[in-house]
Amino acid sequence: MKYPAGIKNKITSVPVEKLEKKSYSHSHSNRGMLLEEDINETNKFYNCHDVAVIHKKPTPIQVVNVGNGKGDYSTITKAFFQSKSTTDYNGIYRNKYIDFEAKETKNKTTFPLTNFHEHQIRHMEKVIKHGAICFAIIRFTTRNETYLVKSSDIIFHYNKMDTTKKKSMSYKTIKEIGELIPLQFKIRLDYLPIVDKLFFN
Amino acid sequence: MKYPAGIKNKITSVPVEKLEKKSYSHSHSNRGMLLEEDINETNKFYNCHDVAVIHKKPTPIQVVNVGNGKGDYSTITKAFFQSKSTTDYNGIYRNKYIDFEAKETKNKTTFPLTNFHEHQIRHMEKVIKHGAICFAIIRFTTRNETYLVKSSDIIFHYNKMDTTKKKSMSYKTIKEIGELIPLQFKIRLDYLPIVDKLFFN
Repeated sequence: MKYPAGIKNKITSVPVEKLEKKSYSHSHSNRGMLLEEDINETNKFYNCHDVAVIHKKPTPIQVVNVGNGKGDYSTITKAFFQSKSTTDYNGIYRNKYIDFEAKETKNKTTFPLTNFHEHQIRHMEKVIKHGAICFAIIRFTTRNETYLVKSSDIIFHYNKMDTTKKKSMSYKTIKEIGELIPLQFKIRLDYLPIVDKLFFN
Repeated sequence: MKYPAGIKNKITSVPVEKLEKKSYSHSHSNRGMLLEEDINETNKFYNCHDVAVIHKKPTPIQVVNVGNGKGDYSTITKAFFQSKSTTDYNGIYRNKYIDFEAKETKNKTTFPLTNFHEHQIRHMEKVIKHGAICFAIIRFTTRNETYLVKSSDIIFHYNKMDTTKKKSMSYKTIKEIGELIPLQFKIRLDYLPIVDKLFFN
C-alpha cells in the first residue's frame, strides 16, 4: 500500500495513541525483537487511514498502593503485573470483530504451544463461536519471518497436546498452514490483506 | 433470565476473570456507586453462559520502576495512571463487534457530557463507521436509574456543544432517547435484550 509524503508524521501524531519514547526506526538486524512495536505501528496506520480500529489491550496491573503520603495520589507506589485473561489485540475490521495474539520465539525449528496460556486458547474458542476473525501472529525471530496462523489451527494443535504429548508446532507446519506476512518499511506488518484472503473469501 | 441453582458459584469461578476480593453482594442503597461492578458481573454471566464475550479493558498504567533491588522483578515500585484512548468495554455479540463506555453521575437533572473524553467520542465515531454496536451505559446514582444510550445520540449532543455551549444532556433527554436497564438480582444489569431491541431490529 502506498501513502503520500508526510503521512508518516500524521501517523505518529494520532492523538488516540500514546507514543512510546523510544525511536520507531530500527534496522533489519533487531526487527525480530520488536514484534509488538511492528504491530502497534501497523495498527496506527490502519486506524489513521480508517482501514480498521484495532488496539492492544493494556497489561493488567493490580494496584496496591497509591501516593507518596504527601497528598500525591497520581503516583502508584506498589503494584503487580497480572496475567491476561484474553488475547492482546482486538477491534473491528470490515464490520467484523477481530481478535488476535502475537507471539515470538527464538527457536528456529519449533514454536512452543505453551507460549499460549490455557485461558487464551479458551478465549479464542469462545470468540470464534460468536463469529470472530481470530488468529495468531507468530514470529520466528532468528529467521526474521512472521506468520499469520488461524486460531482454529492453533486450537487444533493445542488440544492435541494431551494425547500426542507434543507441546509444539514445527516451523514446517506453521510455514505450511500459515501465511507469511511481509515485513515492509511503510506498513511494517501489513496483515490485513492476509485476513482478507483467509477470512473473507 | 432464569438460571439453575449453583450457577452463581460457577460464574464466580470462571477462570478467565480475575475475581475482586471485595464482596459482590450489595444492597440497593449503595448500588449507585457500583456501576462497573454491576457490568463486570453481568459480563461474567454472559461469558459463562455463552451469550457474549465482553471484557473490560485494563486501566493503562505506565510502569517506571520495577523491583525492590533484591532481585524481585515482579513488584512495580513506581508507575502512573494513563488516560484511556478508547472506551472501557468491548467484545463480540451475535457476530457483531460491541463497544461501550460506562459513566455515572450524582447529578439528578443533567448528565455532563464532559464526562466523555474527546478521544473517546472520536473512537466511538470510528467504530460505528466500521459497523460496531456502540453505546453508553449512563447511571444517575442518586436516582438509582441506569440507561443505555446509543453512541450516535451521544455524539450528536457532544458535537452540538460547540455551537450551543450546552455541555450536558438533561435527565429528561436521556430518559426519552435512552432505554432504562432494569436492575436485577440474578443478572445485575441485563443490557443485551436492549441491544437486541435497538441494534438488531
